[in-house]
Amino acid sequence: MNVEVMRNVFARNDALAADTRALLTQYGIVSVNLIGGAGAGKTTLLEATLPKLAGRKRTAVLEGDIATTHDAERIAALGVPAMQLLTDGGCHLGAALVYNSIQKLPLAELDLVFIENVGNLVCPANFDLGEQRTVAVLSTAEGDDKPAKYPLLFKRANAVVLTKLDLLPHVSFDVEQCIRYIRQLNEAAPIFALSAKTGDSLDDWVTWLLSA
Amino acid sequence: MNVEVMRNVFARNDALAADTRALLTQYGIVSVNLIGGAGAGKTTLLEATLPKLAGRKRTAVLEGDIATTHDAERIAALGVPAMQLLTDGGCHLGAALVYNSIQKLPLAELDLVFIENVGNLVCPANFDLGEQRTVAVLSTAEGDDKPAKYPLLFKRANAVVLTKLDLLPHVSFDVEQCIRYIRQLNEAAPIFALSAKTGDSLDDWVTWLLSA
Repeated sequence: MNVEVMRNVFARNDALAADTRALLTQYGIVSVNLIGGAGAGKTTLLEATLPKLAGRKRTAVLEGDIATTHDAERIAALGVPAMQLLTDGGCHLGAALVYNSIQKLPLAELDLVFIENVGNLVCPANFDLGEQRTVAVLSTAEGDDKPAKYPLLFKRANAVVLTKLDLLPHVSFDVEQCIRYIRQLNEAAPIFALSAKTGDSLDDWVTWLLSA
Repeated sequence: MNVEVMRNVFARNDALAADTRALLTQYGIVSVNLIGGAGAGKTTLLEATLPKLAGRKRTAVLEGDIATTHDAERIAALGVPAMQLLTDGGCHLGAALVYNSIQKLPLAELDLVFIENVGNLVCPANFDLGEQRTVAVLSTAEGDDKPAKYPLLFKRANAVVLTKLDLLPHVSFDVEQCIRYIRQLNEAAPIFALSAKTGDSLDDWVTWLLSA
Protein backbone atom coordinates (compact mmCIF):
# COMPACT_ATOMS: atom_id res chain seq x y z
CA MET A 1 0.00 0.00 0.00
CA ASN A 2 2.72 2.45 0.98
CA VAL A 3 4.73 1.43 -2.07
CA GLU A 4 1.79 2.11 -4.33
CA VAL A 5 1.27 5.55 -2.84
CA MET A 6 4.93 6.37 -3.34
CA ARG A 7 4.69 5.22 -6.94
CA ASN A 8 1.80 7.58 -7.47
CA VAL A 9 3.73 10.45 -5.93
CA PHE A 10 6.72 9.82 -8.19
CA ALA A 11 4.56 9.28 -11.30
CA ARG A 12 2.77 12.59 -10.77
CA ASN A 13 6.07 14.33 -10.08
CA ASP A 14 7.70 12.83 -13.17
CA ALA A 15 4.80 13.88 -15.41
CA LEU A 16 5.05 17.48 -14.26
CA ALA A 17 8.84 17.38 -14.58
CA ALA A 18 8.41 16.23 -18.18
CA ASP A 19 6.09 19.20 -18.80
CA THR A 20 8.67 21.57 -17.34
CA ARG A 21 11.42 20.03 -19.47
CA ALA A 22 9.32 20.36 -22.63
CA LEU A 23 8.51 23.99 -21.84
CA LEU A 24 12.15 24.88 -21.17
CA THR A 25 13.31 23.09 -24.33
CA GLN A 26 10.73 25.00 -26.37
CA TYR A 27 12.35 28.25 -25.21
CA GLY A 28 15.91 26.94 -25.56
CA ILE A 29 16.47 27.27 -21.85
CA VAL A 30 18.84 25.05 -19.86
CA SER A 31 17.96 24.61 -16.20
CA VAL A 32 20.32 23.49 -13.47
CA ASN A 33 19.10 21.87 -10.23
CA LEU A 34 21.61 22.59 -7.44
CA ILE A 35 21.40 19.99 -4.66
CA GLY A 36 23.44 19.93 -1.46
CA GLY A 37 23.14 20.01 2.30
CA ALA A 38 22.12 23.09 4.26
CA GLY A 39 25.14 25.37 4.37
CA ALA A 40 27.05 23.64 1.58
CA GLY A 41 27.36 27.05 -0.05
CA LYS A 42 24.83 26.82 -2.86
CA THR A 43 23.70 30.44 -2.64
CA THR A 44 27.26 31.70 -2.25
CA LEU A 45 28.20 29.65 -5.33
CA LEU A 46 25.43 31.39 -7.27
CA GLU A 47 26.54 34.80 -5.96
CA ALA A 48 30.03 34.12 -7.31
CA THR A 49 28.87 32.52 -10.56
CA LEU A 50 26.08 34.81 -11.80
CA PRO A 51 28.29 37.90 -12.33
CA LYS A 52 30.66 35.77 -14.46
CA LEU A 53 27.76 34.74 -16.69
CA ALA A 54 26.51 38.30 -17.11
CA GLY A 55 26.48 39.39 -20.76
CA ARG A 56 26.94 35.78 -21.91
CA LYS A 57 23.88 34.02 -20.54
CA ARG A 58 20.57 35.55 -19.43
CA THR A 59 19.91 33.97 -16.06
CA ALA A 60 17.19 33.62 -13.44
CA VAL A 61 17.10 31.77 -10.14
CA LEU A 62 14.37 29.83 -8.35
CA GLU A 63 15.32 29.64 -4.68
CA GLY A 64 13.85 26.67 -2.83
CA ASP A 65 13.59 26.91 0.94
CA ILE A 66 11.42 25.65 3.76
CA ALA A 67 11.09 29.11 5.26
CA THR A 68 12.39 32.71 4.82
CA THR A 69 13.20 34.70 1.68
CA HIS A 70 16.86 35.22 2.64
CA ASP A 71 18.28 33.47 -0.40
CA ALA A 72 16.09 35.09 -3.06
CA GLU A 73 16.98 38.47 -1.56
CA ARG A 74 20.68 37.68 -1.87
CA ILE A 75 20.26 36.82 -5.57
CA ALA A 76 17.99 39.78 -6.32
CA ALA A 77 20.68 42.04 -4.84
CA LEU A 78 22.85 41.02 -7.83
CA GLY A 79 20.22 42.29 -10.27
CA VAL A 80 19.32 38.75 -11.35
CA PRO A 81 15.61 37.81 -11.44
CA ALA A 82 14.93 35.62 -8.41
CA MET A 83 11.84 33.92 -7.10
CA GLN A 84 11.52 32.33 -3.67
CA LEU A 85 9.82 28.92 -3.65
CA LEU A 86 8.73 28.00 -0.13
CA THR A 87 7.94 24.40 0.70
CA ASP A 88 6.42 25.23 4.11
CA GLY A 89 8.15 22.34 5.82
CA GLY A 90 8.74 20.12 2.79
CA CYS A 91 12.23 18.65 2.62
CA HIS A 92 12.69 18.99 -1.15
CA LEU A 93 11.33 20.89 -4.14
CA GLY A 94 8.71 19.06 -6.17
CA ALA A 95 8.01 19.32 -9.87
CA ALA A 96 4.57 20.89 -9.34
CA LEU A 97 5.90 23.95 -7.51
CA VAL A 98 8.68 24.37 -10.07
CA TYR A 99 6.29 23.98 -13.01
CA ASN A 100 3.91 26.61 -11.62
CA SER A 101 6.75 28.99 -10.79
CA ILE A 102 8.69 28.69 -14.00
CA GLN A 103 5.71 29.90 -16.00
CA LYS A 104 5.88 33.21 -14.16
CA LEU A 105 9.41 33.82 -15.50
CA PRO A 106 9.95 35.80 -18.75
CA LEU A 107 10.99 32.61 -20.55
CA ALA A 108 11.64 34.25 -23.93
CA GLU A 109 14.32 36.39 -22.28
CA LEU A 110 16.26 33.63 -20.53
CA ASP A 111 19.04 31.14 -21.36
CA LEU A 112 19.88 29.54 -18.03
CA VAL A 113 17.63 28.99 -15.02
CA PHE A 114 19.15 27.83 -11.75
CA ILE A 115 16.95 25.98 -9.28
CA GLU A 116 18.49 25.97 -5.82
CA ASN A 117 16.92 23.09 -3.96
CA VAL A 118 16.14 22.89 -0.24
CA GLY A 119 19.34 22.25 1.75
CA ASN A 120 19.36 18.48 2.03
CA LEU A 121 21.75 15.86 0.64
CA VAL A 122 19.09 13.18 0.59
CA CYS A 123 15.49 13.79 -0.43
CA PRO A 124 15.93 16.25 -3.35
CA ALA A 125 17.92 13.60 -5.22
CA ASN A 126 14.73 11.53 -5.52
CA PHE A 127 12.71 14.18 -7.33
CA ASP A 128 13.14 15.14 -10.97
CA LEU A 129 12.25 18.83 -11.39
CA GLY A 130 12.47 18.80 -15.17
CA GLU A 131 16.01 20.18 -15.11
CA GLN A 132 18.53 19.50 -17.86
CA ARG A 133 21.47 19.32 -15.44
CA THR A 134 21.63 18.08 -11.85
CA VAL A 135 24.57 19.45 -9.89
CA ALA A 136 25.72 18.07 -6.51
CA VAL A 137 27.24 20.68 -4.20
CA LEU A 138 29.42 19.48 -1.31
CA SER A 139 31.62 21.61 0.94
CA THR A 140 35.00 20.68 2.35
CA ALA A 141 33.54 21.37 5.81
CA GLU A 142 31.19 18.40 5.43
CA GLY A 143 33.78 15.63 5.21
CA ASP A 144 35.23 13.68 2.29
CA ASP A 145 33.17 10.54 2.94
CA LYS A 146 29.80 12.12 2.18
CA PRO A 147 29.49 10.71 -1.38
CA ALA A 148 29.81 7.17 0.05
CA LYS A 149 27.29 7.90 2.78
CA TYR A 150 24.75 9.71 0.55
CA PRO A 151 25.25 7.92 -2.77
CA LEU A 152 22.05 8.64 -4.71
CA LEU A 153 22.77 12.31 -5.38
CA PHE A 154 26.32 11.63 -6.53
CA LYS A 155 25.18 8.77 -8.78
CA ARG A 156 22.64 11.01 -10.47
CA ALA A 157 24.67 14.22 -10.75
CA ASN A 158 25.80 15.58 -14.12
CA ALA A 159 28.48 17.56 -12.29
CA VAL A 160 29.84 17.82 -8.75
CA VAL A 161 31.03 21.08 -7.20
CA LEU A 162 33.31 20.82 -4.15
CA THR A 163 32.97 24.19 -2.42
CA LYS A 164 34.84 26.01 0.36
CA LEU A 165 38.27 24.96 -0.90
CA ASP A 166 39.57 27.92 1.15
CA LEU A 167 38.75 25.93 4.32
CA LEU A 168 41.05 23.02 3.38
CA PRO A 169 43.84 24.05 5.78
CA HIS A 170 41.35 24.08 8.66
CA VAL A 171 39.29 20.92 8.13
CA SER A 172 39.90 17.19 7.71
CA PHE A 173 39.02 16.75 4.04
CA ASP A 174 41.04 14.69 1.55
CA VAL A 175 40.08 15.93 -1.92
CA GLU A 176 41.57 12.90 -3.67
CA GLN A 177 39.72 10.50 -1.35
CA CYS A 178 36.47 12.39 -1.96
CA ILE A 179 36.99 12.16 -5.72
CA ARG A 180 37.62 8.41 -5.40
CA TYR A 181 34.29 8.03 -3.56
CA ILE A 182 32.53 10.03 -6.27
CA ARG A 183 34.17 8.00 -9.05
CA GLN A 184 32.94 4.74 -7.46
CA LEU A 185 29.43 6.05 -8.10
CA ASN A 186 29.84 8.19 -11.17
CA GLU A 187 32.58 7.85 -13.76
CA ALA A 188 31.60 10.67 -16.06
CA ALA A 189 30.52 13.76 -14.13
CA PRO A 190 33.06 16.59 -14.11
CA ILE A 191 34.19 17.55 -10.60
CA PHE A 192 34.91 21.23 -9.91
CA ALA A 193 36.86 21.99 -6.72
CA LEU A 194 36.63 25.72 -6.04
CA SER A 195 36.15 28.50 -3.54
CA ALA A 196 33.15 30.72 -4.19
CA LYS A 197 34.31 32.96 -1.35
CA THR A 198 37.74 33.75 -2.82
CA GLY A 199 36.73 33.16 -6.45
CA ASP A 200 39.50 30.58 -6.77
CA SER A 201 39.16 27.98 -9.58
CA LEU A 202 35.71 29.14 -10.68
CA ASP A 203 36.59 29.25 -14.40
CA ASP A 204 36.12 25.57 -15.30
CA TRP A 205 32.71 25.55 -13.62
CA VAL A 206 31.67 28.70 -15.50
CA THR A 207 32.94 27.24 -18.78
CA TRP A 208 30.90 24.09 -18.15
CA LEU A 209 27.79 26.18 -17.55
CA LEU A 210 28.40 28.23 -20.71
CA SER A 211 28.52 25.04 -22.78
CA ALA A 212 25.65 23.30 -20.94
CA MET B 1 -5.81 10.78 0.64
CA ASN B 2 -2.14 11.74 0.93
CA VAL B 3 -2.83 13.42 4.25
CA GLU B 4 -4.46 10.30 5.59
CA VAL B 5 -1.54 8.12 4.56
CA MET B 6 0.87 10.50 6.26
CA ARG B 7 -1.24 10.39 9.43
CA ASN B 8 -1.01 6.60 9.41
CA VAL B 9 2.75 6.76 8.99
CA PHE B 10 3.12 9.16 11.91
CA ALA B 11 0.65 7.26 14.12
CA ARG B 12 2.53 4.00 13.61
CA ASN B 13 5.85 5.74 14.22
CA ASP B 14 4.58 7.43 17.37
CA ALA B 15 3.24 4.15 18.78
CA LEU B 16 6.62 2.44 18.32
CA ALA B 17 8.40 5.50 19.75
CA ALA B 18 6.18 5.25 22.83
CA ASP B 19 7.16 1.57 23.19
CA THR B 20 10.84 2.51 22.95
CA ARG B 21 10.41 5.26 25.54
CA ALA B 22 8.65 2.89 27.93
CA LEU B 23 11.37 0.27 27.53
CA LEU B 24 14.18 2.78 28.12
CA THR B 25 12.40 4.24 31.15
CA GLN B 26 12.00 0.76 32.59
CA TYR B 27 15.78 0.37 32.49
CA GLY B 28 16.47 3.92 33.70
CA ILE B 29 18.15 4.77 30.40
CA VAL B 30 18.17 8.25 28.89
CA SER B 31 18.45 8.38 25.11
CA VAL B 32 19.59 11.34 23.07
CA ASN B 33 18.63 11.82 19.40
CA LEU B 34 21.33 13.85 17.62
CA ILE B 35 19.96 15.61 14.55
CA GLY B 36 21.92 17.79 12.13
CA GLY B 37 22.94 18.09 8.51
CA ALA B 38 25.47 15.80 6.85
CA GLY B 39 28.90 16.93 7.99
CA ALA B 40 27.67 19.01 10.92
CA GLY B 41 30.08 17.04 13.07
CA LYS B 42 27.75 14.70 14.93
CA THR B 43 30.13 11.73 14.97
CA THR B 44 33.10 13.92 15.85
CA LEU B 45 31.03 15.38 18.71
CA LEU B 46 30.42 11.84 19.98
CA GLU B 47 34.11 10.96 19.61
CA ALA B 48 34.98 13.95 21.82
CA THR B 49 32.12 13.42 24.29
CA LEU B 50 32.16 9.67 24.98
CA PRO B 51 35.62 9.57 26.62
CA LYS B 52 34.51 12.36 28.99
CA LEU B 53 31.50 10.29 30.05
CA ALA B 54 33.59 7.16 30.66
CA GLY B 55 33.37 5.96 34.24
CA ARG B 56 30.38 8.22 34.89
CA LYS B 57 27.78 6.99 32.44
CA ARG B 58 27.63 3.64 30.66
CA THR B 59 27.00 4.54 27.02
CA ALA B 60 26.09 3.00 23.70
CA VAL B 61 25.53 4.50 20.26
CA LEU B 62 23.10 3.71 17.47
CA GLU B 63 24.51 5.16 14.25
CA GLY B 64 21.93 6.02 11.61
CA ASP B 65 23.11 6.25 8.01
CA ILE B 66 21.83 5.68 4.52
CA ALA B 67 24.87 3.62 3.56
CA THR B 68 28.29 2.53 4.92
CA THR B 69 29.37 1.53 8.44
CA HIS B 70 31.98 4.33 8.70
CA ASP B 71 30.41 6.00 11.72
CA ALA B 72 29.78 2.89 13.83
CA GLU B 73 33.40 1.88 13.20
CA ARG B 74 34.58 5.27 14.49
CA ILE B 75 32.58 4.83 17.70
CA ALA B 76 33.56 1.17 18.20
CA ALA B 77 37.19 2.25 17.96
CA LEU B 78 36.63 4.12 21.24
CA GLY B 79 35.55 0.91 22.94
CA VAL B 80 31.92 2.05 23.16
CA PRO B 81 29.23 -0.40 21.99
CA ALA B 82 28.01 0.82 18.60
CA MET B 83 25.42 -0.49 16.18
CA GLN B 84 25.00 0.73 12.60
CA LEU B 85 21.39 1.35 11.55
CA LEU B 86 21.15 1.55 7.76
CA THR B 87 18.09 3.13 6.17
CA ASP B 88 18.98 1.96 2.63
CA GLY B 89 18.05 5.29 1.08
CA GLY B 90 15.69 6.57 3.77
CA CYS B 91 16.29 10.19 4.75
CA HIS B 92 15.69 9.76 8.49
CA LEU B 93 15.60 7.11 11.18
CA GLY B 94 12.16 5.75 12.03
CA ALA B 95 10.93 4.45 15.36
CA ALA B 96 10.55 0.86 14.09
CA LEU B 97 14.24 0.46 13.23
CA VAL B 98 15.26 2.04 16.54
CA TYR B 99 12.83 -0.12 18.53
CA ASN B 100 14.12 -3.32 16.93
CA SER B 101 17.75 -2.29 17.36
CA ILE B 102 17.56 -1.05 20.92
CA GLN B 103 16.38 -4.47 22.11
CA LYS B 104 19.68 -5.95 20.95
CA LEU B 105 21.60 -3.69 23.36
CA PRO B 106 22.50 -4.91 26.88
CA LEU B 107 19.96 -2.52 28.39
CA ALA B 108 20.59 -3.47 32.02
CA GLU B 109 24.20 -2.32 31.59
CA LEU B 110 23.51 1.13 30.10
CA ASP B 111 22.71 4.66 31.32
CA LEU B 112 22.86 6.78 28.18
CA VAL B 113 22.13 5.77 24.58
CA PHE B 114 22.96 8.17 21.76
CA ILE B 115 21.08 7.86 18.51
CA GLU B 116 22.89 9.65 15.70
CA ASN B 117 20.32 10.34 13.03
CA VAL B 118 20.86 10.43 9.26
CA GLY B 119 22.60 13.65 8.22
CA ASN B 120 19.67 15.91 7.40
CA LEU B 121 18.40 19.12 9.01
CA VAL B 122 14.86 18.52 7.83
CA CYS B 123 13.18 15.11 7.83
CA PRO B 124 14.52 13.59 11.09
CA ALA B 125 12.86 16.43 13.03
CA ASN B 126 9.46 15.02 12.03
CA PHE B 127 9.99 11.58 13.56
CA ASP B 128 9.92 10.79 17.27
CA LEU B 129 12.27 7.89 17.98
CA GLY B 130 11.24 7.50 21.60
CA GLU B 131 14.21 9.53 22.81
CA GLN B 132 14.15 11.51 26.06
CA ARG B 133 16.25 14.35 24.62
CA THR B 134 16.41 15.77 21.09
CA VAL B 135 19.61 17.66 20.31
CA ALA B 136 20.10 19.88 17.26
CA VAL B 137 23.67 19.97 15.94
CA LEU B 138 24.70 22.86 13.68
CA SER B 139 28.22 23.72 12.55
CA THR B 140 29.65 27.20 12.08
CA ALA B 141 30.47 26.17 8.50
CA GLU B 142 26.76 25.94 7.69
CA GLY B 143 25.82 29.58 8.24
CA ASP B 144 24.15 31.43 11.11
CA ASP B 145 20.74 31.69 9.40
CA LYS B 146 20.03 27.95 9.35
CA PRO B 147 17.69 27.96 12.40
CA ALA B 148 15.46 30.50 10.60
CA LYS B 149 15.55 28.48 7.39
CA TYR B 150 15.01 25.06 9.01
CA PRO B 151 12.84 25.97 12.01
CA LEU B 152 11.18 22.69 13.01
CA LEU B 153 14.29 21.03 14.42
CA PHE B 154 15.25 24.09 16.46
CA LYS B 155 11.71 24.47 17.80
CA ARG B 156 11.67 20.88 18.97
CA ALA B 157 15.22 20.61 20.35
CA ASN B 158 15.90 20.20 24.07
CA ALA B 159 19.42 21.49 23.46
CA VAL B 160 21.39 22.99 20.56
CA VAL B 161 25.07 22.30 19.96
CA LEU B 162 26.95 24.76 17.74
CA THR B 163 29.97 22.81 16.52
CA LYS B 164 33.25 23.68 14.76
CA LEU B 165 33.80 26.84 16.79
CA ASP B 166 37.46 26.50 15.70
CA LEU B 167 36.38 27.48 12.17
CA LEU B 168 34.97 30.86 13.27
CA PRO B 169 37.97 32.88 12.00
CA HIS B 170 37.55 31.32 8.54
CA VAL B 171 33.79 31.40 7.95
CA SER B 172 30.99 33.98 7.97
CA PHE B 173 29.11 32.97 11.07
CA ASP B 174 27.77 35.37 13.68
CA VAL B 175 27.23 33.34 16.86
CA GLU B 176 25.06 36.03 18.49
CA GLN B 177 22.85 36.27 15.38
CA CYS B 178 22.49 32.50 15.29
CA ILE B 179 21.47 32.45 18.95
CA ARG B 180 18.89 35.18 18.24
CA TYR B 181 17.40 33.02 15.46
CA ILE B 182 17.28 30.03 17.82
CA ARG B 183 15.68 32.09 20.59
CA GLN B 184 12.90 33.23 18.21
CA LEU B 185 11.93 29.56 17.98
CA ASN B 186 12.94 28.18 21.34
CA GLU B 187 13.35 30.17 24.54
CA ALA B 188 14.41 27.38 26.86
CA ALA B 189 16.89 25.03 25.20
CA PRO B 190 20.48 25.44 26.37
CA ILE B 191 22.89 26.32 23.56
CA PHE B 192 26.42 24.89 23.69
CA ALA B 193 28.97 26.50 21.37
CA LEU B 194 32.04 24.29 21.26
CA SER B 195 34.76 22.68 19.20
CA ALA B 196 34.80 18.89 19.28
CA LYS B 197 38.04 18.97 17.29
CA THR B 198 40.03 21.03 19.80
CA GLY B 199 37.93 20.00 22.83
CA ASP B 200 37.22 23.66 23.56
CA SER B 201 34.13 24.45 25.68
CA LEU B 202 32.94 20.84 25.89
CA ASP B 203 32.39 20.90 29.67
CA ASP B 204 28.93 22.51 29.80
CA TRP B 205 27.64 20.06 27.20
CA VAL B 206 29.05 17.10 29.15
CA THR B 207 27.57 18.45 32.40
CA TRP B 208 24.18 18.74 30.71
CA LEU B 209 24.43 15.11 29.54
CA LEU B 210 25.44 13.94 33.01
CA SER B 211 22.34 15.54 34.50
CA ALA B 212 20.01 14.55 31.65
